[in-house]
Amino acid sequence: MDLTVGGYLGARLRQCGVGHLFGLPGDYSMALLDELLATGLDWVGTTNELGAAYAADGYARRRGFGVVATTFGVGELSALNGVAGAYAESVPLLALTGGPATSAVVAGTPVHHSLLDGDLTRFSRAYAEVTAAAEVLALDTAAEQIDRLLQLALDELLPVHLTVPCDVAVAPVQGAERLARPLVARSSDPESLAEFEEALRHRLSSAQPVALSGRLAVRTGLRGEVRALADAGVPVATLLDAKGLLDEAHPSSLGCYVGALSPDPAVVAPVEDSDCLVVVGAVLSDLVTGMFSAHLKPAVTLGLHEAQVGEVAYPRVELRDAVAALVRVASGAAASSPQLIGGLDQLGVRTGPSARDEPASIEDPDQTGLTQEALWRELAAWLPPGALLVADAGSAYFGAAGVALPAGAELVGQPAWASIGWTIPALLGLAVGGDDRPLVLVVGDGAAQLTVQELSTVLARGFAGTVLLLDNGGYTVERAIRSPEAAYQDIARWDWRALVRALAPGVRVETALVETAGELRQALRSGSAGTPRFLQVVLPRDDTPPLLQGIARGLGAAH
Amino acid sequence: MDLTVGGYLGARLRQCGVGHLFGLPGDYSMALLDELLATGLDWVGTTNELGAAYAADGYARRRGFGVVATTFGVGELSALNGVAGAYAESVPLLALTGGPATSAVVAGTPVHHSLLDGDLTRFSRAYAEVTAAAEVLALDTAAEQIDRLLQLALDELLPVHLTVPCDVAVAPVQGAERLARPLVARSSDPESLAEFEEALRHRLSSAQPVALSGRLAVRTGLRGEVRALADAGVPVATLLDAKGLLDEAHPSSLGCYVGALSPDPAVVAPVEDSDCLVVVGAVLSDLVTGMFSAHLKPAVTLGLHEAQVGEVAYPRVELRDAVAALVRVASGAAASSPQLIGGLDQLGVRTGPSARDEPASIEDPDQTGLTQEALWRELAAWLPPGALLVADAGSAYFGAAGVALPAGAELVGQPAWASIGWTIPALLGLAVGGDDRPLVLVVGDGAAQLTVQELSTVLARGFAGTVLLLDNGGYTVERAIRSPEAAYQDIARWDWRALVRALAPGVRVETALVETAGELRQALRSGSAGTPRFLQVVLPRDDTPPLLQGIARGLGAAH
Ligand SMILES: Cc1ncc(C[n+]2csc(CCOP(=O)(O)OP(=O)(O)O)c2C)c(N)n1
Ligand SMILES: Cc1ncc(C[n+]2csc(CCOP(=O)(O)OP(=O)(O)O)c2C)c(N)n1
Repeated sequence: MDLTVGGYLGARLRQCGVGHLFGLPGDYSMALLDELLATGLDWVGTTNELGAAYAADGYARRRGFGVVATTFGVGELSALNGVAGAYAESVPLLALTGGPATSAVVAGTPVHHSLLDGDLTRFSRAYAEVTAAAEVLALDTAAEQIDRLLQLALDELLPVHLTVPCDVAVAPVQGAERLARPLVARSSDPESLAEFEEALRHRLSSAQPVALSGRLAVRTGLRGEVRALADAGVPVATLLDAKGLLDEAHPSSLGCYVGALSPDPAVVAPVEDSDCLVVVGAVLSDLVTGMFSAHLKPAVTLGLHEAQVGEVAYPRVELRDAVAALVRVASGAAASSPQLIGGLDQLGVRTGPSARDEPASIEDPDQTGLTQEALWRELAAWLPPGALLVADAGSAYFGAAGVALPAGAELVGQPAWASIGWTIPALLGLAVGGDDRPLVLVVGDGAAQLTVQELSTVLARGFAGTVLLLDNGGYTVERAIRSPEAAYQDIARWDWRALVRALAPGVRVETALVETAGELRQALRSGSAGTPRFLQVVLPRDDTPPLLQGIARGLGAAH
Repeated sequence: MDLTVGGYLGARLRQCGVGHLFGLPGDYSMALLDELLATGLDWVGTTNELGAAYAADGYARRRGFGVVATTFGVGELSALNGVAGAYAESVPLLALTGGPATSAVVAGTPVHHSLLDGDLTRFSRAYAEVTAAAEVLALDTAAEQIDRLLQLALDELLPVHLTVPCDVAVAPVQGAERLARPLVARSSDPESLAEFEEALRHRLSSAQPVALSGRLAVRTGLRGEVRALADAGVPVATLLDAKGLLDEAHPSSLGCYVGALSPDPAVVAPVEDSDCLVVVGAVLSDLVTGMFSAHLKPAVTLGLHEAQVGEVAYPRVELRDAVAALVRVASGAAASSPQLIGGLDQLGVRTGPSARDEPASIEDPDQTGLTQEALWRELAAWLPPGALLVADAGSAYFGAAGVALPAGAELVGQPAWASIGWTIPALLGLAVGGDDRPLVLVVGDGAAQLTVQELSTVLARGFAGTVLLLDNGGYTVERAIRSPEAAYQDIARWDWRALVRALAPGVRVETALVETAGELRQALRSGSAGTPRFLQVVLPRDDTPPLLQGIARGLGAAH
């Protein structure tokens, strides 16, 4: 039997390491879904399309690529915010839409889920604004279009959008033989790479490098390389969006750098005063730079496809190759000039005190109401090694940013896009796409109201992690910025624990109400392995973590 | 003190009859919200932005205009599907976004909620694809832009989008004196209108008119005029999107026309065979035409701004004026030629039997499991006069389409956009924007999973109506179209009644599980006045109302 366009797409996705699709069906997309699922892809139905996009994003962060599959108009537009977020956060995704038949598109037929104005390509154009590319598949070019867009997404770590008309989905594909050549990552230009390495060697022969790493190193899976760099004695700081890329307990770890707002101020001088700052895979924005309070003078910059040493740019040097070169050069330099590369001691840095080893405060916190300070201290003390700490864009994210992570643990969030509610569906994608790393979600009550129903899917799929719901009576982040008493800061009160049970009646979930540090400590430490936990953590309405106070001052001034 | 741009906008909205804003705040929008709320507008915070857009749509259907207010990027894109739906359904809305400061837009600053690519106008352009117009306010033209866009929305019954940079929101407005001239509806060209009326009179002097009315007559509030037409003896049929515009119990009511799929086939011949069919405010699409099975030969067509008699178009004749002319002419004709205008008897039509007066089936339905047929029969028998029957785009909508409505009742839904989950937040807008008409919501379990949390806001605001949740194990509509056993047709099981209670812990809600016709009848008839009710109605997985069977056949063939 001939391979269909849908079958071709499914095969390509499997080659890219994709095993699951997230989405909801619709009458325009069912034919496409049938083709895709026939290739062995698994369906993960979500409660709504925004959840599907967020989940695909979480999945892509574990698997390198994610797919959100929706129907025309109603479905795809519901997912748009999630796909735009993937753009802002450098996450490669395919947003896939099953659309009306080509004949309807050509004729402008007034079909349901269209605007009835004869133009059935509007939604594709809306997608073009928030993706690297958006195209409607045509029968005779489908294979080429699929390959080109997937390649683009993988190369640029960005989302792309494909509309597949329902007739095209089931038609025989032209050019099926292309499947014999899997899509591969771009490779560096050997000459440019060699020149870069030479310049790097020269540069590192006379100055101690300090590395500052950002999200692109996380997305391209350079954990091992960054570790090797640190092992060679190069001090490494990370931006918020790469927090935990290097074990924060590693002797060469400087921790997390957020400009003047860095949770541990000891990180600032080594990064900002370095005469050989190496910036690795960073994308700068207001929040990660501590509201533009970062003062960086990079000597070396490693971008996704280009490296730079001093004023000289080396085009077509892929980040992966550049970091490998950096490891080689630094290891060599460490061997030959130990006075230049000698970890933190060499810099005279003493990091800390971090939240991890702060002493408990004088008053007995176990008896008094919980505070943000106590919350993060207890969480830091308990957090298991290797954990993914998923923090939503409220006070949760800024508190999590101040936690000194145990070995192998990483912070997962959206410091650039900062769409509240992202974490619950993202947790679904992280769980489905991941291995057995412990998952810990911290989400505000305001944020959770946006996407709470996806906990149903998370729990139905056997999630065994811990969810902390920060119950602080509304939008604390926003109150910290402006008009704390405004009506728009309030949210409805919910019975959170009953809600969670109602969303997953067949699943055993341990729920608890936590009002003191002692209760939190106990709740975190008790609990049966393999059983999901949901802790409703009561906090004062206007209490905020320190980093948020700085950010809020910056935002209040900017607006 | 100088009036600000935000204050100006608030004043204009109040002039347009707007009393409430639906949305969520964000750091870019709080300054704008403070200005708006200072003008006396009420804030209705929703659980997420898609809910806000749906609610604003519901509100606009009662009040003539609605506003959804969001923050930049994350908020506005989440609302996009809801705003596009307003376009598809001819609902005038303002989608209002608080954005970054003008200086940041000009400089392309990498602020949060942007794509970090230097282009902060992308989301406005995405909105341009699904609205009549989308603009970013500039300081010196703000008042003119606001007026022009609001006027456009009101004239065309379409959504518009405004981005208000946070510095512009609080700056003094230029041209505040414009407020002295309220925005008014377009008026007809008197000459064109007179010519139209003359042609109409000529036409109706020799043929019996039959009217077929669509959604634009609903949106422009022509209920009274349509009633007058019917009182004059003109038989009136409605499209699905105007079902109930004329009391279905009125002696001149033909009921609901859906082409060959019309629930009551008696409506087809009078409409299709009429030699003087007058089509009033109709927008045709696949579902409302019974998958294009409608065969209409209009003699007269009344559009939003233009009327047509035979081949002659009369530009600048507003729908309102055209219908008033039609009433005058028909009343005159009825007086002078009663043989031409004599209601249904004249047509020889006997409508029915409708669901309303069908006898109960032979088996005792009170004991056996509920069916779609029994559900709609019981609902029709109970539905209070004046009710708004809000039906979601699953089997609910197609079942509701077959109900013979009592006096004053109307069907509310989205037959063109058909976005599942729309009804729950729309119910919020209908309740907040409305008077004391009874509200009855029928929503599928699949649909409810998308937006269930807005029941929290609905209940917190004192809703006293009835919600029927159709619990039939997943996506019955989609199963009827294709691949009924596919994994993507299933949804997670929820404890619906516990869920509803958890979403509104302080509110008394009567909940019931309904599994037989007898239980349904009893549940509908018992219950305390003023107390909201939530009925979980269990139905067979693959049972569908008759209209849906026809639609599903059409859709299955089209894809
Ligand atoms: C989708 C979306 N809507 C609105 C916002 C604006 N916003 C940012 S933080 C926040 C409040 C978050 O409150 P909560 O989750 O309760 O966290 P808290 O700060 O109270 O702990 C809001 C509304 C946003 N970032 N994303
Ligand atoms: C936002 C959105 N996503 C997907 C669809 C496609 N769709 C149409 S009907 C339907 C199933 C509805 O199921 P349910 O609400 O349970 O109603 P039922 O037909 O089962 O009574 C789906 C998924 C849609 N119309 N809108």
